[in-house]
Amino acid sequence: MTQNRRFTLVRRPHGLPQPDDFAHDTVPVPSPADGEFVVRNRYASLDPAIRGWLDEAPSYLPPVALGDPVRATTVGQVVASNNPAFAVDEWVLGLNAIEEYSLVRPGGFTMPIDPHTVPSVTHYLSVLGAVGLTAYFGLLEVGKPRPGETVLVSGAAGAVGSLVGQIARIVGCRTVGIAGGADKCRRLRDDYGYDAAIDYRGKSPAALAAAIREAAPDGVDVIFENVGGAVLDAGLLALNHGARVALCGLISEYNSAEGAIGARNLWQLIVKSATISGFLISDFLPRFAEGATAMAGWLAEGRLRVDEHVDEGIENALPAFLRLFEGSNQGKMILALGAP
Amino acid sequence: MTQNRRFTLVRRPHGLPQPDDFAHDTVPVPSPADGEFVVRNRYASLDPAIRGWLDEAPSYLPPVALGDPVRATTVGQVVASNNPAFAVDEWVLGLNAIEEYSLVRPGGFTMPIDPHTVPSVTHYLSVLGAVGLTAYFGLLEVGKPRPGETVLVSGAAGAVGSLVGQIARIVGCRTVGIAGGADKCRRLRDDYGYDAAIDYRGKSPAALAAAIREAAPDGVDVIFENVGGAVLDAGLLALNHGARVALCGLISEYNSAEGAIGARNLWQLIVKSATISGFLISDFLPRFAEGATAMAGWLAEGRLRVDEHVDEGIENALPAFLRLFEGSNQGKMILALGAP
Repeated sequence: MTQNRRFTLVRRPHGLPQPDDFAHDTVPVPSPADGEFVVRNRYASLDPAIRGWLDEAPSYLPPVALGDPVRATTVGQVVASNNPAFAVDEWVLGLNAIEEYSLVRPGGFTMPIDPHTVPSVTHYLSVLGAVGLTAYFGLLEVGKPRPGETVLVSGAAGAVGSLVGQIARIVGCRTVGIAGGADKCRRLRDDYGYDAAIDYRGKSPAALAAAIREAAPDGVDVIFENVGGAVLDAGLLALNHGARVALCGLISEYNSAEGAIGARNLWQLIVKSATISGFLISDFLPRFAEGATAMAGWLAEGRLRVDEHVDEGIENALPAFLRLFEGSNQGKMILALGAP
Repeated sequence: MTQNRRFTLVRRPHGLPQPDDFAHDTVPVPSPADGEFVVRNRYASLDPAIRGWLDEAPSYLPPVALGDPVRATTVGQVVASNNPAFAVDEWVLGLNAIEEYSLVRPGGFTMPIDPHTVPSVTHYLSVLGAVGLTAYFGLLEVGKPRPGETVLVSGAAGAVGSLVGQIARIVGCRTVGIAGGADKCRRLRDDYGYDAAIDYRGKSPAALAAAIREAAPDGVDVIFENVGGAVLDAGLLALNHGARVALCGLISEYNSAEGAIGARNLWQLIVKSATISGFLISDFLPRFAEGATAMAGWLAEGRLRVDEHVDEGIENALPAFLRLFEGSNQGKMILALGAP
């Protein structure tokens, strides 16, 4: 019987996740019942959203149960199947977990993928996956940028933010990115084509607001917000009349044990007749093919640079996940779960 | 030469306005130059927005200068005119100040009104004025309620909120109002037809959120927000997918010397794909006639109850204004500036 190594949740984190919140165990791989199949996971996508799934509070997905492996999107290959739609050896993308083998029941979110159409199968976890579609629909459908407008992106060097800046330029916008540290700011300009880059580190809210005004002398028409807190508050001070804030994430708040700061400068929404709109990528499910086709086209034309940061080994799941909050990853964070 | 008694700003308030922030003075009424005219103000509209105009920070209107009379919308009669479009004795509505006489220069916001078409000329400062149009366009165009949806209104017994609840019922929505105190809650149900009323006083954020869930068992589709802070945060916890928050005001924060709380539960916007939209009534200027016609029609049909709280005398300007923040007014707050 094949053994399945798993990265499980054993205690709900309070603030930043700690080693004692998790365990590594080994269990037998179950046999697939009628309609089920088993996937050998090759890569797991490490996303900030996972942090939310570890809390007890209900969200858009049920919390990960204590003792269960940590939920994650994975790509892998079918190794056993009692489902005629999924043959052995076929590659699939699905919402599974950080474990070597996942049993997939009918009705879940799993789709076949073709690894030969992309430079790397990991691209299904980055530019062609939730990250890419979040950037595409969040910017274009929620932020609704018009050519010539200024788009401000926080978390701009991250997996989503780096794509948002590039898409915004493709559709004719001026782009200003906010990131932490001189090296990331250099990458914003050199690698992702941002017109201006702002290092938020060491800046007071007033200094950050002043830096945004300097980088966006005509004001900000669209904010693509990944960070929240003081960064969002500074951005709100630079809004033009009728501006749109696409609220994608609030990574500065996910590990806050004291409670969220939120947005303090809501008054700006009134005086600028501006809007903050949250969104989930699942809202755009019927249009995923359209978004993936557009992203694949820009990728093939060499208009999108895609960075992935792949750490190796399920034993490194926690340090790899924590990179998202330390900011020590350069590109989409992916965990490799061993060779075929 | 006629004398003009004025209520002037002499020091910028820090937190709640204090008596020493203001003065009463008497100056000569200037003669109108070419194109100008002089209005004898009869009623001044006391609005929360005035508090913002007293701060030094730039807003959608310039701050009231120290030594100047406090800006307010007034209705009054032309008493001297060098402008052929405005004849002596004509009634006008305009953005003037808390003073007996205002000199009106060309190009400002002043319009003639007909006092004979309404039960009281003060209605131009309430149901047919900015208050009524704010309720009309803010609810219908920003909140976009659909028949059968649930609309939550904070500051529901106030001048705007009481009209919002009535309009929401007219368009077929279930209405839940939040106000401070048992007497206001009784008025929400008995006078303004709210389906449910919630007293926020003495309630923790969790208790307020629980009360909203009980009053809105199907969730909240539209929030019309006048208050902000803990009240907004509780409302955000009850949003349905795709809900809209029309952000009209943040009266809980206007006098906060410590800085705003803002909204801490922004995460709800993401998981509910919900939107907060600020607005200014001036955005709808081209449609004012449409809104006023609709409100006048409902008023004539007896479908709108309009409450006005009129205090007498310019010497009472400050206590009358402070009623807005104490919550001791019942209906639109108006200051009468003496008989003709």
